[in-house]
Amino acid sequence: MERKNYQSRPNRPIDYLKSSVNKIILIKVKRNRLFRGKLAGFDEHLNLYLEGTTQLFEYIDEDGSVHEEHETLGDIVVRGDNVIFVNLANPDG
Amino acid sequence: MERKNYQSRPNRPIDYLKSSVNKIILIKVKRNRLFRGKLAGFDEHLNLYLEGTTQLFEYIDEDGSVHEEHETLGDIVVRGDNVIFVNLANPDG
Amino acid sequence: MERKNYQSRPNRPIDYLKSSVNKIILIKVKRNRLFRGKLAGFDEHLNLYLEGTTQLFEYIDEDGSVHEEHETLGDIVVRGDNVIFVNLANPDG
Amino acid sequence: MERKNYQSRPNRPIDYLKSSVNKIILIKVKRNRLFRGKLAGFDEHLNLYLEGTTQLFEYIDEDGSVHEEHETLGDIVVRGDNVIFVNLANPDG
Amino acid sequence: MERKNYQSRPNRPIDYLKSSVNKIILIKVKRNRLFRGKLAGFDEHLNLYLEGTTQLFEYIDEDGSVHEEHETLGDIVVRGDNVIFVNLANPDG
Amino acid sequence: MERKNYQSRPNRPIDYLKSSVNKIILIKVKRNRLFRGKLAGFDEHLNLYLEGTTQLFEYIDEDGSVHEEHETLGDIVVRGDNVIFVNLANPDG
Amino acid sequence: MERKNYQSRPNRPIDYLKSSVNKIILIKVKRNRLFRGKLAGFDEHLNLYLEGTTQLFEYIDEDGSVHEEHETLGDIVVRGDNVIFVNLANPDG
Repeated sequence: MERKNYQSRPNRPIDYLKSSVNKIILIKVKRNRLFRGKLAGFDEHLNLYLEGTTQLFEYIDEDGSVHEEHETLGDIVVRGDNVIFVNLANPDG
Repeated sequence: MERKNYQSRPNRPIDYLKSSVNKIILIKVKRNRLFRGKLAGFDEHLNLYLEGTTQLFEYIDEDGSVHEEHETLGDIVVRGDNVIFVNLANPDG
Repeated sequence: MERKNYQSRPNRPIDYLKSSVNKIILIKVKRNRLFRGKLAGFDEHLNLYLEGTTQLFEYIDEDGSVHEEHETLGDIVVRGDNVIFVNLANPDG
Repeated sequence: MERKNYQSRPNRPIDYLKSSVNKIILIKVKRNRLFRGKLAGFDEHLNLYLEGTTQLFEYIDEDGSVHEEHETLGDIVVRGDNVIFVNLANPDG
Repeated sequence: MERKNYQSRPNRPIDYLKSSVNKIILIKVKRNRLFRGKLAGFDEHLNLYLEGTTQLFEYIDEDGSVHEEHETLGDIVVRGDNVIFVNLANPDG
Repeated sequence: MERKNYQSRPNRPIDYLKSSVNKIILIKVKRNRLFRGKLAGFDEHLNLYLEGTTQLFEYIDEDGSVHEEHETLGDIVVRGDNVIFVNLANPDG
Repeated sequence: MERKNYQSRPNRPIDYLKSSVNKIILIKVKRNRLFRGKLAGFDEHLNLYLEGTTQLFEYIDEDGSVHEEHETLGDIVVRGDNVIFVNLANPDG
């Protein structure tokens, strides 16, 4: 019963993704990757389907300088276990 | 039966998050990240929904100096498996 | 019930792979590997069966230069837990 | 049946935490962290709720010297999968 | 029902291993290992039983040179969670 | 049925821990740690309860020398997923 | 039904361990460890019970030389998730 309460309570984290469907979100994943794209689908594992995605990859070189690479990816399915956090769309966005 | 006892006993760790809903908490996650934001939702996996979040990223450069970066993120959903610990709001907070 | 809703809603991420069956896709996996091949099968764990696969392996040498190796693999089964993201085929592709 | 035997036998490891509730314990977690606090709650995943927690972070610098940082954290919920071991309170403590 | 569809559809990735039983396959596993052997058995976790196996271990030394070691292993059982991908036998092989 | 056979067969690995209860054992865990203590409890996840535990921590310094630190811990609960192997007590011990 | 087929088919990888019970096998585990011992028990997670075990630990020093350490361990229980592969006994062994 306890567990069901968590599942159905209104402020379950995954529920907040619904308000960002069809909006641009940022997804921070492991290994210093960042995706920016339109959220077109998600499930309870945080698997995500993103349209028009751009990847930003950050790394630090030997001199300590931070470098960032951009790459246009298009439509991607992200496996949820790579996700650190999802940055939701601005409610006005 | 044994297992149910743990689930329903009053001092289950996850239950203590309830008292911090709508309060500012700190979340320490893997890979030297720290989030500060208002707890708006959570579930039994420690997935968290945070509003008005700031990220603090600590790293040590080649000289051994500790650097800290701040970044304003807004509203985020943190995938629970990245969490090391949640620092609850001060009861007076 | 909540959970079933996620499973059956039309925009579940894994469902989008169906439109790429028999088309060329890119798969980014952990450890800097990238596969390009024709998607011939997949399951809910993101296990993938790819035909005519080429592997691209990127690494950075001591001088900071990025190197890329190509290797023709043929038909492979990728274990889903290695996948970071799947780059779907262009709808016109 | 075999499995149930393990669950209910008197010397199940998790059961020993009960005697440390409301006592000061030490928790060694991954990534060289150590928490010292009063055990206020736990579950079968070794999720822990600690009150009045101090964090001790050990690291080795370039000269091989061991450094230790102290930080007062207050009340925290530790996600169980980070725990290496829990050092129980002295029975006399 | 949705899930069962994936399980039973003809192009499930694991099903493609059946055509390689008793044939020579290549298995790429984590930590830069590669096995070549005759596939004698497998299960849904990608646990594999290989006969007459040779291990190829690649590493890069300090000069950036790629080295490869060969080792004859005989019959081995590979734990599935180490597998990155299985390179199926050539249909003509 | 197949699975039950494995569970109940007499030579299941976990069963061999029973003969070491109340005896001194060695536990090798990840991250170069070694515990020596009296086995007072265990479960099917290899969670362990040890009494009178000493921790031995090995590391290699910059000169390649192996160092070992000893630390008296007392009674600890080890989370099973950290365990590499348990070295059982000598039957004569 | 599909899944049950895999479980009960004769060439399931784990079944091949049966022929090595009471024989000397080699077990390659993560973190460059190798165990040689008599297989006295195993389960479906590849937890293993080995008698008269010797551990071989390989590492590469600063000069690129490969070193190997031997250690007599006696009877050990290996937690299955550390196993990369098991090298079965020679059928004539």
